[in-house]
Order: sequence, then C-alpha cells, then structure tokens
Amino acid sequence: MNYQSTIFSAYLSDPEIATLISDEALIKKMLQFEAALATAQAKLGMIPQTAAAEIKTVLNTITIRPADLTAGTLQNGIPVVTLVALVKQQLSKEAQSYFHFGTTSQDVMDTAIVLLVKDALAVIHNRTTGLIKALQHLSEQYGATLCMARTRAQLAMPVTFAHKINAWLQPLQNQAAGMQQLEKNMALQLGGAAGDAAAFGTNATALVNEVATILTIAAAPAWHAQRSNIAALGNWLALHAAILAKMGADILVMAQSEINEVEENAAGGGKSSAMPHKNNPVLSEALVALGKINAGLQSQLLLAVIHQNERDATAWILEWNTLPQLLINTATALQHATTIATGIKVNTKQMQDNVTKFQQSK
Amino acid sequence: MNYQSTIFSAYLSDPEIATLISDEALIKKMLQFEAALATAQAKLGMIPQTAAAEIKTVLNTITIRPADLTAGTLQNGIPVVTLVALVKQQLSKEAQSYFHFGTTSQDVMDTAIVLLVKDALAVIHNRTTGLIKALQHLSEQYGATLCMARTRAQLAMPVTFAHKINAWLQPLQNQAAGMQQLEKNMALQLGGAAGDAAAFGTNATALVNEVATILTIAAAPAWHAQRSNIAALGNWLALHAAILAKMGADILVMAQSEINEVEENAAGGGKSSAMPHKNNPVLSEALVALGKINAGLQSQLLLAVIHQNERDATAWILEWNTLPQLLINTATALQHATTIATGIKVNTKQMQDNVTKFQQSK
Amino acid sequence: MNYQSTIFSAYLSDPEIATLISDEALIKKMLQFEAALATAQAKLGMIPQTAAAEIKTVLNTITIRPADLTAGTLQNGIPVVTLVALVKQQLSKEAQSYFHFGTTSQDVMDTAIVLLVKDALAVIHNRTTGLIKALQHLSEQYGATLCMARTRAQLAMPVTFAHKINAWLQPLQNQAAGMQQLEKNMALQLGGAAGDAAAFGTNATALVNEVATILTIAAAPAWHAQRSNIAALGNWLALHAAILAKMGADILVMAQSEINEVEENAAGGGKSSAMPHKNNPVLSEALVALGKINAGLQSQLLLAVIHQNERDATAWILEWNTLPQLLINTATALQHATTIATGIKVNTKQMQDNVTKFQQSK
Amino acid sequence: MNYQSTIFSAYLSDPEIATLISDEALIKKMLQFEAALATAQAKLGMIPQTAAAEIKTVLNTITIRPADLTAGTLQNGIPVVTLVALVKQQLSKEAQSYFHFGTTSQDVMDTAIVLLVKDALAVIHNRTTGLIKALQHLSEQYGATLCMARTRAQLAMPVTFAHKINAWLQPLQNQAAGMQQLEKNMALQLGGAAGDAAAFGTNATALVNEVATILTIAAAPAWHAQRSNIAALGNWLALHAAILAKMGADILVMAQSEINEVEENAAGGGKSSAMPHKNNPVLSEALVALGKINAGLQSQLLLAVIHQNERDATAWILEWNTLPQLLINTATALQHATTIATGIKVNTKQMQDNVTKFQQSK
Repeated sequence: MNYQSTIFSAYLSDPEIATLISDEALIKKMLQFEAALATAQAKLGMIPQTAAAEIKTVLNTITIRPADLTAGTLQNGIPVVTLVALVKQQLSKEAQSYFHFGTTSQDVMDTAIVLLVKDALAVIHNRTTGLIKALQHLSEQYGATLCMARTRAQLAMPVTFAHKINAWLQPLQNQAAGMQQLEKNMALQLGGAAGDAAAFGTNATALVNEVATILTIAAAPAWHAQRSNIAALGNWLALHAAILAKMGADILVMAQSEINEVEENAAGGGKSSAMPHKNNPVLSEALVALGKINAGLQSQLLLAVIHQNERDATAWILEWNTLPQLLINTATALQHATTIATGIKVNTKQMQDNVTKFQQSK
Repeated sequence: MNYQSTIFSAYLSDPEIATLISDEALIKKMLQFEAALATAQAKLGMIPQTAAAEIKTVLNTITIRPADLTAGTLQNGIPVVTLVALVKQQLSKEAQSYFHFGTTSQDVMDTAIVLLVKDALAVIHNRTTGLIKALQHLSEQYGATLCMARTRAQLAMPVTFAHKINAWLQPLQNQAAGMQQLEKNMALQLGGAAGDAAAFGTNATALVNEVATILTIAAAPAWHAQRSNIAALGNWLALHAAILAKMGADILVMAQSEINEVEENAAGGGKSSAMPHKNNPVLSEALVALGKINAGLQSQLLLAVIHQNERDATAWILEWNTLPQLLINTATALQHATTIATGIKVNTKQMQDNVTKFQQSK
Repeated sequence: MNYQSTIFSAYLSDPEIATLISDEALIKKMLQFEAALATAQAKLGMIPQTAAAEIKTVLNTITIRPADLTAGTLQNGIPVVTLVALVKQQLSKEAQSYFHFGTTSQDVMDTAIVLLVKDALAVIHNRTTGLIKALQHLSEQYGATLCMARTRAQLAMPVTFAHKINAWLQPLQNQAAGMQQLEKNMALQLGGAAGDAAAFGTNATALVNEVATILTIAAAPAWHAQRSNIAALGNWLALHAAILAKMGADILVMAQSEINEVEENAAGGGKSSAMPHKNNPVLSEALVALGKINAGLQSQLLLAVIHQNERDATAWILEWNTLPQLLINTATALQHATTIATGIKVNTKQMQDNVTKFQQSK
Repeated sequence: MNYQSTIFSAYLSDPEIATLISDEALIKKMLQFEAALATAQAKLGMIPQTAAAEIKTVLNTITIRPADLTAGTLQNGIPVVTLVALVKQQLSKEAQSYFHFGTTSQDVMDTAIVLLVKDALAVIHNRTTGLIKALQHLSEQYGATLCMARTRAQLAMPVTFAHKINAWLQPLQNQAAGMQQLEKNMALQLGGAAGDAAAFGTNATALVNEVATILTIAAAPAWHAQRSNIAALGNWLALHAAILAKMGADILVMAQSEINEVEENAAGGGKSSAMPHKNNPVLSEALVALGKINAGLQSQLLLAVIHQNERDATAWILEWNTLPQLLINTATALQHATTIATGIKVNTKQMQDNVTKFQQSK
C-alpha cells in the first residue's frame, strides 16, 4: 500500500517533492521564518540588534530533528511550541524575551508551509512547461495523422491526432498562465496571537513588508482565519491532475488491444506476472487514479475554509493532511504524463486504417 | 426532505435561481442557440437567408414543454435530439436541411447551460455586492467594539468585532474581484460532431465569433472535451459557500446561549416545537451545511474534467447534476448571510463584559 | 440540467421514488407519527382517550399543503413547528395540550423520514430482486459463450460471459441479503426535547414500543444524536449504485464500436443529432455517472454523523439533502440496469471471433 | 505537514498501525501467500513436493527490501512482477516453473492486503474494546451528574452526563458487534490471470479452501473485480472515525472556556506559543479532523468499486491509496479518544451550576 511507501515511491509518489516538503524542510522553513522575523524586528527597532544577532546565530546552527518535535506536537497539537522552546534553551535570558516576539504558532506554521509550497510549485511549474513542450513536439510529429474521434464510447468522425492532443495541451497552457497568481496568493502569514498584529503596534504593516521581502514571498494582511488562498491552490492542483487524468483516460482507449492506435511506452509497457503477452499502459492508469484522488482531496481543502473563530484545528488539520498529497500527486502525474508524451509509440498506420474501416462501414 | 421540495424551498433552496435554471429556461436557451446559429450562418452565407428567416420564425413561436422531451432524453441520453426533431416538424423540407447545420447536441447543451449560468451568476453577483455592503455597514456600526478572539475553541485575546467581520468580508471581496474572469470563461461551445468544427470549413472562426456576439457571451475554441471552465466555476461557487459557512460557524459560537454576543435574528430566531425558550440561529446552521454540501459537490465537478475521448456522458452527467445545486446552494447562502448581516442583534455590552471577565481571570 | 427537472426525470431520476419521498408524502408521514403517538399515549393512559380521538380526527382530515410550511421552515429551520401549529388551530383548547405531547420536532422529522425511506426501500428491494432474476436469465441464455477478459485495459484471457455477469450478480445478491438489517436499522426516533424521553417518565419504553408497533417499524433507543443508521443506509445505497456502475462500465467497453460484443439496447440505442450512425449506450453511461454521484454523496452522510451536542442542523441538513438523492439515484440505476439486462443484444458470434483472433495472435 | 511525517506521527498518525501495514509487512505477506499456495498445491498434487519444499525454503530465507521493488513497480504498475522475478532467481529451473503457479499479481496483492488489514483490525478491535470500557467507567463515575443538553447550538434542557456519554458509547458498541462480519469479508483472493481459476482446473475450490486455511482467513469465490468487501471495510472505518469525531465535537463545546464543564486533559492540555493561559483540547480537534478526512476517503473507496473489466488499476490504485489512511486515521482516533476518556477532567460542580443558571433564567 502506498502510504509512506518506498515500493510505490516512483509509481504513485514523487521523491523530489517528498523531499521538498519533508519534516526536515518544514523545520528549516520554520527556523527561517523566525530568523526573518528577528532580522526585520531589529531593523525596525522593535528588538535590539544584539538580540537579533544572537537569535540568528542560534537559528543557523541549531539542529532540530523531526523526532524532537513528535511528543510536543502530540501535546500541543502543533510542533511550533516545542520548536520555540528548543531554540530558547540555547538563547541567553535576554535574547529569549525577544525571540518569537509578538508572533504565534500559526504564523510560523502557515508561513513555513507557504515556503514549502513555493518550492514545490517551482518543480511543478518546470514540469508543466516541459510537458507542454513535449505535447507540442508530439503534435508536430504526428498531429496531422487522421484518427477516429469517439463520442459517448462510440466511433464518431475522423479528426486529426492534433485535435486530441490539443484537448490535453490547451487546458495545461491555461493552467500555466494561472500559476503566477497562485504564487502571489501564497503570502506571508503574520498576525500574532489573535491575528490582528496587536503586539506589533504601529510597526505592523512595515514589519509584514519587511519579513515578506526577506523571505521573498508576497506581503498580505493576516489570513489566519481566511483560507481561500489554500483552497485556490488546491483547486489548481486538483484541476491540473484532472486534466492529466483526461489525457490518461484517452490513451487508455487508444491503447486498447482492439484499437491499438498508440502504445503508452514504445520501449514496452507494464508486464503481468501471469500473462507474458501483456503490455499494460500503467502510467495512464496512474494518471486517471491520481486525478480521482485529487478530486476527492480538494473537497477536504474546501471544508478547511470553514475555519471557526480565529484558529480552528478541526479545519486546519485538513490542510496539513491534504496539501502534501495534492502536491505530490500532481507532480507525480506531471512526471508520468511527460514520460508518456516523450515515449509513446504512435501507430499512424493503425490510426489511418481505423479511419478507413469506419468510412467503409458507413 | 429537500429534493424538489416546496417545504424547504426558502430555507435550503432559492426560487429565483431555480426559475433561472429551470427546464423552461433550458429549453428557451437551447432554442436561442439555434436561432443565433441560423442567423450567423445566414450572415456568413453558409445557409440561405430565407431558410434562416423561416427557422427563426419557428424558433420564436414553437412551444416545447419539458414533458415533451422526457422520453427522448431517456432514449438518447440528451434532450437535444428530440428538441431538434420537434422543431424540424414545423419546418419546410428545405429549411430542415439548414437547421442545426453542422452543429451537434453538445454544442446546444453546453451553450444553453452557459447562458443559464450567466443569468444565475448575475443574481449571485448582485447578492455578493449587497452582502459586502451589509457587512461593511455592520462593521461601521459595531466594528469598534472589543470582543473575544477564540483560538482552538478556547478564549484567546480581545480583538475588535471589525477584525471578525473582516474575516468574512475580505475573502468575499476577493471573490467578487474574480467574477469577471469567471464570466469570461463561460464561453460559447461550438464545434460540431467531433468538436473540430469540420462542417463549418473556413467559416469556423468567423461563425464562432458571430454566434458569440449574438448571444453576448465570449467566443472561444471548442471546449467540448476540456471542462476546466466548468470546474473553475464550481470551485468559485464552492469557495463562496465555504466563506459564508465560516461566517455561519463564527456566528453559531457567538450566539451560543452561554456567550450571547450576538443573536442571529434581532426579530427572534428559530423556534422549537418542544422548548418555547429557544432562539435558534437556523440561518447560520444552513450556511455551515450549505458550505459542506458544496465542498462535496466540487469533487464531482473535478471528476467531470476526466472526460474521456471527444464526448463522455459518464463525466458530463456529473456537471448536469452538480452545477445547478452549486448555483442554488451558493445563492441561498448569500441570501441567508445578507439576512443575518442586516438583521443580527449585536450585544455590545455582553461583548465588552466577556472581555472584562477574561481580563480579570488572568 | 437535472435539478427538479422534468426533462431528465426518466433518464436521471425516478418518478416513482420521487413521489414516495415527496413533500406530500413527508407531510402525511409527519401526521401519521403524531396520530400514532396520540393513540399510544391514550392506550398507556398518558393522555385522555377523548383528546386522542379528537387529535386523530383532525390529523385524518386536515389538509396541509407544502407551501403552507415554506415560510415556517425558513423561520424555524424545520417544518414541524408550523405543522404542529396548523394542527393545533383545529383542536380544542384541551386537546391542544395533549397534542405533540412530550415529543419534539426531531422525533417527528426523523421518524417521518424513516417511514419515507421504508417505502422507498420496498421499491428498491423489488427492483433488486427483479434485476437479479434478469441477470440470472441472461447468464442462462448466453453465459456459456466465451469472450475476452480484459485486465488493465488490455486483452487478457478468454473467459465465459457468465464469469463477467457473475461480477455484477454476486455483489447484488450480497446486497440483497443485507437489506433486512438495513430496514431493521430504520427505527422509530422518539426521545423528546433533549432526546432522553424525560417527559414520558416511566412510560418511556412502553411508549416507544407501542408507537413503533403502530407504525410497523422497529423500536429502538433514541438515536437523535447517533446517526450511524443513516450513514449505514447511505453506504448500502452508494455501494449498490457503485456495483451497477461497474456493470455499466463493463458494458461500455463491450459495446465499443471496435469490440461490438454487445449492444446495450437490442431495439436501438441513443441517437446523435449530428451522426445518424450512432448507437449510444446511454443507460450504461448513466449507470457509471450515478455510481460516481452516490460515492460523493456518501461522504456527506458520513460527515453528518459528526452531529454536535444533542441536535445539530449543520449536520442534520446534510442528511435531508443527501438521502433523497441517494435513494433516487440508486432506484434509477436499478431501473436502467434492468432495462439493459433484459434488452441487451449479445453478439455471441463476435465474442467468439474476438477470442479466436486473440488466440491466433499469440 | 503530516504526509510521511515523524513530527506528526503521534498526533495525526499511529506508529503501531504504520508498522503493521508497512512496505516490509507487505513484502512479508506477499511471500507468505506464495508459500501457502505452494504448500497447498503440493498437498493437492498440483506441483511436486520437492518443488514446494524448495520454494518454501527460498521464501523463508530471501531478503527483499522495499527499494528492490521500486523500479519494477513503476515499470509494471504493481510490485508483484518484480517480487516474483527476485524469488525465481534463487530457485532451480524446475522449481521456477512451479512457483506462482496459476496465480497472478492481483491474487498476491489483494491477499497480502487482506492479511495486513487483518493485523490492523486486531489492533483496532482491541482499542475499540478498551475505549468502550473507558467510556463505561467514565459513565459510572460521573454519569449521574446533571448537565445541559444543547440543541441547534442553544441551551435545551438538563440531561445526565450519562446521556451524553451514551451517544458516544452506543454507536461504538454497534460497531464492535459488526467487526466479526467485517473480518469474515476479508477473504482470500485467488483466481489467476482472468479471475476464473482456469489454471487450477478441477482443483480450484479445494485449492482456495486449502490456501485460506493455511493463511487462517476466510475462503471465498474470487472477488478480483468485485470490490464491495473493501468498500464495506472502508465504510466501517469511516463510520468509526465519524462516531469518535462526534465525541470530539461534543467535548470541544463542553471544554469551551465559557462553558468549562470538562477539560480534555486533567494533566493540562495543549499550549500556545503566544498565550500561556491556553489549555487547548487538541485531541478532540484531531478527532473531528480525522472524522472529516475519513468521510472524504470513503468516497474514494466507493469509486473503486467501479472497477472496469476484470482488472482496473484506475480503480484499484484508489484502494491502495485510501485503505492505509483509513486504517491509520481510525486507529489514531481510537488512541486519542481513549486518552480523553481516561484523562478527562469532569467539572461536576460547573455542570450543576450551568444547569442551575439555566433553570433560574427561565
């Protein structure tokens, strides 16, 4: 089974994304947030420069392992309390009082997740661009070939193969055009205990801008209880996977033994332990499955928008659970779709023969 | 139970939207599409002007009742085949051959739905604007009052009531800003049998532009097998309802008997058949429920993007089932949220007392 | 679009079930519950016989139309308060005080829904039995024919057609065997204001038994805040539809133009408005779609089990919304599956030819 | 984020179940299946005793690490092909031809998962029994105390605390009673290439019985394309988590600062990094979140029942993805619920005071 599975790590997961959003990465991003906060607060005169310098030194050198946070996360329902305590142990009494100043667990957690997402989206962006190029290339190579359109599971009319490829390509290009807005939505969260930045006084806006600049993410008003940006990200990821699932579903039909217009893998597809003649389009199957899984996950992210009061872990936990899977599933699907687009065997003669047979039957 | 229910038509449905997307409206929009097509084709010289004139006369005068299409929809899995046949019965032999020329059921159905959605979105747009104003007014009236923030179901820190209202208002304003793009996505579908506009020859692009102009919707390449626009619409609607559900969830807490910071309905809330003292915040409850329902529905629209081949009713039907509910639920939620925003009783003294009690307890 | 649609009422809905769970039926069942309660309370000496007689006379003769309850349902978030008030208007002062005695809205609503469900399940039971017989008959007629098994979208090995039919039949038989428990779960709800039957004193258990006997449903402890029985019903309905969807999915492959082992409808399938040669398996498509829809709906019913405190409309409304759709979708799917099982054209020669072709290719 | 997370392994996951369904466990169970098959086939004279002995020796001694299967799983869409190849490398030529005889990847995979599930269910069974006892003990200790029922988010009437506990306890007892059937459903899958046990000839039934006996699981006809048993398991797990989520939701209300009838953790609850006064009921929050997550996952398992043809990875993968999460989430929720039931602080005086205050206000 694929939960935390090495066996399925290449077929139904993605090691690159998994590393980018790992526990170790989360810890690093949480420390990075705290460092940016101290730096900005010192710059704005909110805490002493010496305290900031000490804090940054400790944050740069401290080693916090995931297992150090396990018990604290169970106790507090969040890893940040323990992480803050571990850092404070290495700080002088004075620096302690300036560390994590005016902020709260949610600021750390939300911003760290934003930073992880940003890294993962960079990979997803590259893969999307790569896939678009591969599909364009495929269309240039084989697009002029006539093949059968199929509507409601029946032969319809001849179309070009380019027409089929375009139904995969066009939505991906639209998605790519939407990525910039998506990344802009992934903004700094910094609002303190109740999200109103009360502890920062008149420096609140300047501080938000400064921290965002240091972390090279967008500045924004606190969104601690407004989770639309996460839901919008989820929708993009779910839609991306659904678009790739449509590509997979089309290939599964074209690759059917009886139709044989394409073979998913020119180098030979999936084997069976019982039937040596099999040539299974296993990546296309994964595309369809990943699309369905992401569709289901997105409903969880929409539920997470129903975030009660100023902080609500009955909703927040849904994000922690769902977002990593959405990122990994989408990245995995992009990988497989690119493998297909570059490695597919197009049986142009068979395409043409199927068209001829259809025309003769009418 | 609320399916097709008059009993629940005001509490869990919306008669205005229900009328806008009714069977009668669908029939009207389908005929409207056919009229626009004939007009445009005549203008472009694709069919004779006389045929177009005859077609438009019949389309303007014919009466097709929903029940006329029931048996045909069961037979063909789509109402369009029967609708076209009924129109043809009233056309001359010659005009028959120019009616529905080069188009297909999906063009009619998809475009008619786009036209219905456009009407429903206009209502949703107005209600959203109205709600934003009502919340701004509420914030102007009572926003300065201090009340308790609550995090993870516990008292946190005092904030202004404006801070709470802002968590409902800000996301709605973002949503409102996104509506223009949403409507632009709701474009004409016109691609013919296999979606490649083959029957229109070199006139294809001009025809799309002309029909779109007549119907005052956006022109676009055929999207018969690319359903991202529908999924994006669904996400907007689901997100809208989730944002309103968050508002409902917050009010349910503030209106708890033990907290008593607000009463949902200054004129008296829901009654119980057994407990005369009850003052139930029944609109807030509906908001939360509608948000959950829409979150679940959106996963269906994402599944519908996995649309196999050039037309796939195993996916398409999901849209027919889901989209009306999403529209109605969102519009209902907007109605209730506005009722709350304008009719809520804010117990400013109790808010202040709760803050004082908190501060004394520390 | 199919919401409240006459156009789609035969293809994607079911008039028989729709009538059984209509507003009118709900009102009738609510009145029936009140009559049974008064009868039982009089028998147990909890209210005077004369009051019970008067109450029953009014309940038998009163006309309450759905529209009479619309405004009250919006006001109170439940139709029962208004229904009770309308009945009381026709009662003497004395009888008023004995009407709806010790009970509450939820008792009326939950039990009325149980009674509606029982009626709908009777239809579903009959259709399931009919479908099982039709599939057995189909297997007797054609089961011995060899045809191709397909695994992972590729030709696998020859099997009998009976082997394929059995994958539809066996799960249905298991489901049928589970219906008795399902109906037993649909028990009387009678607990009063807070669900602990406090107002009934020492008569509580006797009253529950008596009312259940009159209504010919199972007696049970109050389940007002324990919604597992509804979720279990939903799972059965969703599973039923998913099993039929698997049948639909199989037929869609076997009916593909290129495979041609079956035609969904021996009398001619769905037509296209653009392609006269089409023979679309539109009932199988509906089966697949209805299975997906029910799968999504079941997650709503599971969410409804998270029913906060002693009554929680943010959860309860999910049941009102979901259960009717699950019942209708399942009944519709049974209807279509039976139409297919009895009207399918089995091309035994083609089945055999496909096997031969496969064997020669190896 | 909690995917593959050590940080969240105690709060939102369960190391005990994670180990029981790990890659290593899966490999062990796959080898166990092959050993049972060879043993049974030798006993029935289907393969030579010497071959069976050699096969069992290799299966007992071979070391296959998860990473050994990663590339093969990507290639074949299933780990079994590679696992079989690795075993064969260590077998004599003769024994190779008798290894994995007549079976197929799906038999190995499905049965291995059944064996993993059986182990996980044993833990879940024990925890359920333990939780039931803990709740019974809690009810014995504090059940007689009066506290306020709350309906539709408002104070309703006084009830006993036992009445509230019973709404958690009763559904769990029903669930416990259903476990035996659940385990019986988790039967051997053994059908070979196309699922019809063709390769086993007249020994098919005897072989199924023998292998099932060796593995101490139920025998059953091949269910390769009938996934109702997996869906039924998922529903039980989702329902279990939803019942516990209802308990969590109730406690979140009772533990609100303003209500204070209970504290989730008598030893002190979750802390905040910004607010030292906080005492967060973080386990109850997790219960609610896990219930929602499982509700969403179950819709995936229902979709997996729509399993096309004789093997369909677009559906099967949904099971691989969903089942582990359902098991882990349910087991985690049981752990947390038991922690709460045994460690909760019940403020009986506050309960009584809240009742008195309510009674005086009327």
